[in-house]
Amino acid sequence: MKPYVSLNREELQNELAAVQVKFEAIKAKKLSLDMSRGKPSAAQLDMVSDILNVLTKPEQCIVEGIDARNYGGLTGLPVAKKYFGEILDCDPECVYVAGNSSLSMMYSIVSTGMAHGLYESEKPWRELNGKPKFICPVPGYDRHFRILEALGVEAVTVPMTPTGPDMDMVEELIKDEMVRGIWCVPKFSNPDGIIYSSETVHRLANMKPAAKDFVLMWDNAYCVHEFDTDFVPLEDIMSLCREAGRPNMVFQFASTSKITFPGAGVAVMVASEDNLQYLLQFIGTETISYNKINQLRHVLYLKNKEHTLEVMKKHARIMRPKFHMVLDTLDREIAPRGLAEWQRPKGGYFISVNAMEGTAKRTLQLCQEAGVVMTPAGATFPYGKDPRDSNIRVAPSLPPVSELEAAMEVFCICLRIAALEKLLAK
Amino acid sequence: MKPYVSLNREELQNELAAVQVKFEAIKAKKLSLDMSRGKPSAAQLDMVSDILNVLTKPEQCIVEGIDARNYGGLTGLPVAKKYFGEILDCDPECVYVAGNSSLSMMYSIVSTGMAHGLYESEKPWRELNGKPKFICPVPGYDRHFRILEALGVEAVTVPMTPTGPDMDMVEELIKDEMVRGIWCVPKFSNPDGIIYSSETVHRLANMKPAAKDFVLMWDNAYCVHEFDTDFVPLEDIMSLCREAGRPNMVFQFASTSKITFPGAGVAVMVASEDNLQYLLQFIGTETISYNKINQLRHVLYLKNKEHTLEVMKKHARIMRPKFHMVLDTLDREIAPRGLAEWQRPKGGYFISVNAMEGTAKRTLQLCQEAGVVMTPAGATFPYGKDPRDSNIRVAPSLPPVSELEAAMEVFCICLRIAALEKLLAK
Repeated sequence: MKPYVSLNREELQNELAAVQVKFEAIKAKKLSLDMSRGKPSAAQLDMVSDILNVLTKPEQCIVEGIDARNYGGLTGLPVAKKYFGEILDCDPECVYVAGNSSLSMMYSIVSTGMAHGLYESEKPWRELNGKPKFICPVPGYDRHFRILEALGVEAVTVPMTPTGPDMDMVEELIKDEMVRGIWCVPKFSNPDGIIYSSETVHRLANMKPAAKDFVLMWDNAYCVHEFDTDFVPLEDIMSLCREAGRPNMVFQFASTSKITFPGAGVAVMVASEDNLQYLLQFIGTETISYNKINQLRHVLYLKNKEHTLEVMKKHARIMRPKFHMVLDTLDREIAPRGLAEWQRPKGGYFISVNAMEGTAKRTLQLCQEAGVVMTPAGATFPYGKDPRDSNIRVAPSLPPVSELEAAMEVFCICLRIAALEKLLAK
Repeated sequence: MKPYVSLNREELQNELAAVQVKFEAIKAKKLSLDMSRGKPSAAQLDMVSDILNVLTKPEQCIVEGIDARNYGGLTGLPVAKKYFGEILDCDPECVYVAGNSSLSMMYSIVSTGMAHGLYESEKPWRELNGKPKFICPVPGYDRHFRILEALGVEAVTVPMTPTGPDMDMVEELIKDEMVRGIWCVPKFSNPDGIIYSSETVHRLANMKPAAKDFVLMWDNAYCVHEFDTDFVPLEDIMSLCREAGRPNMVFQFASTSKITFPGAGVAVMVASEDNLQYLLQFIGTETISYNKINQLRHVLYLKNKEHTLEVMKKHARIMRPKFHMVLDTLDREIAPRGLAEWQRPKGGYFISVNAMEGTAKRTLQLCQEAGVVMTPAGATFPYGKDPRDSNIRVAPSLPPVSELEAAMEVFCICLRIAALEKLLAK
């Protein structure tokens, strides 16, 4: 097997013809496979379904004098704050336990910034002289970018590195007063699966942005989601920002969506006391209180950090072989042909494949023809536009291993065809 | 017992001295009673706590091929749409089943109107030449008004009548193009507890507002909440608006907050297909999907309309004696003295007491001194300002009957003191 770039025109043509035969054979199978989103598999959901049985009696609903069945307690059940405080290694008083969606809390921060301004703002962002900007490390999470687009915030990209966002660029960009925030997925970043280095975390906490209401959006979505290593602690960003003199700069988010049930989990936001106090006036207008029964159910099921990490080890046993299979297949089929590069994540939900420039869209078009749905090309960039048309997010969690094997076979063939077409078109 | 207005000055003074002795005696008891919010009582919550037991096995979570434990199905589980379609007597396809809070869906409509405009809008409301306005029948629900205030929409009041909002005034006001909506609680209105007459419902459905994006906010919060009568059907507002040629004018809301658990229930919005389609782009930016496990739990527990009405009959058995006690006490203590007027609701959660003009605030101040918390005076009016300082919302549901008796004794004494002070100040 030789790298494609070293093949001559005739060899490329022969290779394309051979791969196309395989592609037609696969198309004939009329597959219907999905590697598009980071959804847990049915086996994972079954594994945690005992959560349906932990809260069954009315007397269990009354905890520390609070009846979780009734209105009240807008910032969450105290036992739930305590639980998440332990998980995120932060002060339970700063934990705001809400509904099922951390994404909607992130949306809320940006939309409040736009409409009313945040605690440190002089005025609402929409009254600024021009569009406010957010720094988006790329590749990144499509739904972060979509929030900006929907609310009229301009996305400014910086490249991800193996240690996190390019901090030299970040530190340069925040000198612009119009830059009001940055998206970060510090552990098992979506989609690269890397963990920010301690240096990156410290540089982020010590940023001195020109805009005093700049927000560090710390989406700790995969805080306990190791599948191929023991728990990796991350320094508490809340403390670091406080020590750096900007306690109100950071909002941390997390949820149990990929610990228990996606959509039926519990989401949290961690923020300074001033930030929480300020935001409560808006949150209190939108809702009376969140589902405290579901909060309580999660505390009863997940218990504490130690037990949660045990649950995550069970998830890991299901996730690990899938990721290994994807990585092994790429190592075998793609690496020797020199068609792409990727990280080797030890947690999270994604593998980020950087294909030969200009081939991502075509690869995924071919996958679709062969019945394999993948995250659309460009989705990992703001406005859906990957300037190099290279990054592809692979989400191996949902299909069982047998389907994943079939899907990866398709994916590798499509990567090869797209690369061959590209090289032949030169 | 004579009406206070017929007493001479000396009689008033003697009466005040006598009532003040009672007031001091009650203050000495150091009560701590709450009639401030429409919260179900512990007995009601216990009565429906079997909902904790209906969904316990993983195989139950897969319904019609959909796994309620995973992401997806942003508009709700089909079985939940069907259930609410039957409850609200409307097309299940137009039912959007979401999280736990109908209030947050109402907020969403108004905030979307402001920031982006609604389906029929030419431009966002915040780009209008001046503040958009909403019609607020008064007395009304404080949280409706608070949404307007938070989002910068001006409240224009019209009086409630025993058949609903004053429709002559409404039909006049909607000629103003700046008027973009109206709040309605058509069944057991908050706080009057009246049901809109058929004529009112038809006139509302047939409104021809100058603003083509005018919204009829149909908060059907008490759709099955009869406690002193059999189920009272209400004509389907969705069909009526469609027949009147304005299918996109209306949004209906409901929830199970006062059927099962407040805060841990399921909320729905009913809207035309065009409206739903339009709104999904915004909703889909904010969240991935709602808690479908909780939706499923509700369908399994409440089953259908017939069974839901049976559950509501059980609530009624707990609610009815409380409302009777309040009404009987007012009939005995307040009516003969001519100090207030009130409706006699047969459902819902409130009794609306219109005290002698200029005495509501003072009455509630006295209640507070005696340890009885009530909804603040003015809360039933936009901006918290009751121009007559007269309306008081009584919420009898939360306390057990024995506490309610004590609270009502306090309330009547406070009403009397406030009236006597007022009459003596003349």
